[in-house]
Amino acid sequence: MGRKTLEDLFIHDLSDIYSAEKQLTRALGKLARAATNEQLSQAFETHLQETHGQVERIDKVVELCGVRLKRMKCAAMEGLIEEGQELIEELGKGPVLDAGLIGAAQKVEHYEIAAYGTLCALGKLLGHNDAVKLLHETLDEEKATDQKLSQFAEKIGNPEAKKG
Amino acid sequence: MGRKTLEDLFIHDLSDIYSAEKQLTRALGKLARAATNEQLSQAFETHLQETHGQVERIDKVVELCGVRLKRMKCAAMEGLIEEGQELIEELGKGPVLDAGLIGAAQKVEHYEIAAYGTLCALGKLLGHNDAVKLLHETLDEEKATDQKLSQFAEKIGNPEAKKG
Repeated sequence: MGRKTLEDLFIHDLSDIYSAEKQLTRALGKLARAATNEQLSQAFETHLQETHGQVERIDKVVELCGVRLKRMKCAAMEGLIEEGQELIEELGKGPVLDAGLIGAAQKVEHYEIAAYGTLCALGKLLGHNDAVKLLHETLDEEKATDQKLSQFAEKIGNPEAKKG
Repeated sequence: MGRKTLEDLFIHDLSDIYSAEKQLTRALGKLARAATNEQLSQAFETHLQETHGQVERIDKVVELCGVRLKRMKCAAMEGLIEEGQELIEELGKGPVLDAGLIGAAQKVEHYEIAAYGTLCALGKLLGHNDAVKLLHETLDEEKATDQKLSQFAEKIGNPEAKKG
């Protein structure tokens, strides 16, 4: 106990986000199909492609740092995806569900922003400079996606949706 | 299906964050006890008090909007707390666990930032202006806590911790 190193924590967190991204690749297609707004659906599809790229980036980080990921399932992402599923079942297709999906997706993005932020900080402390560059690219992508979703929320949250 | 309104979504999201905050009040004490760094432990205790205030603020929002919360369990917060618990078990007490707890707590804060951000946007659309003011107060507190945790990460992530 207490003999673990920051490198162990870095590997733990990297394994966690790897599981999270993998789960997300399976969930984003469902979100795209559940969305009524064509642009929102397309945004989920685009982010799916981006997420595949982020998984590959983690593979490169693993190679660069010479570490081995642990097999684990990210419990938080499991819960986040469950919440999205609940919304789809409860709300049914339409503009209100679209607003709900945007919120659910922003929670996912914020999870990833926190996760990659921590990984960048740990990677820097450990001197994994090339890996940090890659992790930072993903962090920037997640922040951009979150902002794009905020813009969608403003566009979609119109009086029509209020009427249900 | 598809007949739900933005008000339904607002109530759903409010019920979700209420469950999340309640779960958090039970978890923060554990984080405080698991932290070795005295200031970090104190920060968790302080945030516990703040979280009690945030729960009361949701009660006020419920009253102001004249809505009734649904009984539900926030699955994402359940997963986030599980992750913190896993870290405590895996890492054992010490500076590395402290770094891990900071990361876990930042994931929690980001969940809440996304949740309250969505609630503010929905509340504004629905004209719940007084409620939005309260929700914004909490949003600002969560952002401040996240920043405080980032500062801790810089202070705590020192070469001593690297040695494990």
